[in-house]
Amino acid sequence: MNALARLGMVSESPSENQTITTACLEPAKDYFVERDGVRFAGMHLLIDLWGASNLDSPELIDRTLCDGALAAGATILHSHFHHFTPNAGVSGVVVLAESHISIHTWPESGFAALDVFMCGSCDPYKVIPFLKAAFAPASVQVGEQKRGLVV
Amino acid sequence: MNALARLGMVSESPSENQTITTACLEPAKDYFVERDGVRFAGMHLLIDLWGASNLDSPELIDRTLCDGALAAGATILHSHFHHFTPNAGVSGVVVLAESHISIHTWPESGFAALDVFMCGSCDPYKVIPFLKAAFAPASVQVGEQKRGLVV
Repeated sequence: MNALARLGMVSESPSENQTITTACLEPAKDYFVERDGVRFAGMHLLIDLWGASNLDSPELIDRTLCDGALAAGATILHSHFHHFTPNAGVSGVVVLAESHISIHTWPESGFAALDVFMCGSCDPYKVIPFLKAAFAPASVQVGEQKRGLVV
Repeated sequence: MNALARLGMVSESPSENQTITTACLEPAKDYFVERDGVRFAGMHLLIDLWGASNLDSPELIDRTLCDGALAAGATILHSHFHHFTPNAGVSGVVVLAESHISIHTWPESGFAALDVFMCGSCDPYKVIPFLKAAFAPASVQVGEQKRGLVV
């Protein structure tokens, strides 16, 4: 932890208390999703928040992303957030059985860049209302990618 | 660690021995990048590997992504990899001072989905030769996004 301590505050949440489900738990057995006539590995959203608040709180960010992940039907394996300096940006990730959610924030610009990648039957769009509630962005830009698309 | 232990093997590497540089260390002070007449927060590559090997080794994946991150000029803060079962998929992330690298693998399909997001002067494309060397993919598909693009 020495290197991390030199760089700022770190929060770590292995989320031990969560109920573990087996849905989409093992990518090796998850095969690919088939939806609307196409086969792919998972849905990946790139989400940019502009004019957003509360981007300097690793605790709020951790709670928000984990709440969103659960609402999307995902299983949390691990989360890690780094607070660069007090009142400054936060970088971190929630590792899911169904892939991950990441966030990087620039509080002085009111900007946050997230990505939400989920395989299986999880719905990554269900994370977005939690982002709106926590960070009150003036605008939300979403790009959708189907990863591992087989045609 | 109980929940994690139930789900499979976890590797954790806070990378204590790495030399810490101050380049692009704090998003709050990093402002945005200006390049080719446009201003943006960072470059985000979505990389799909097909026909790839060695996708079931968290140790190799951890080493490959960390080597790639350093070659790209990034500073590693934390890495975490989850091996769902022996010989099966790996999910994980390297959290960087300049954002992150993530990977999710489907060894039975020879498929891996990565994303490499780096702010500042780091070059995310420098990660790709390390992926080719470690996983010998038959094909590599790369999508590039400028995140936080201000026009």
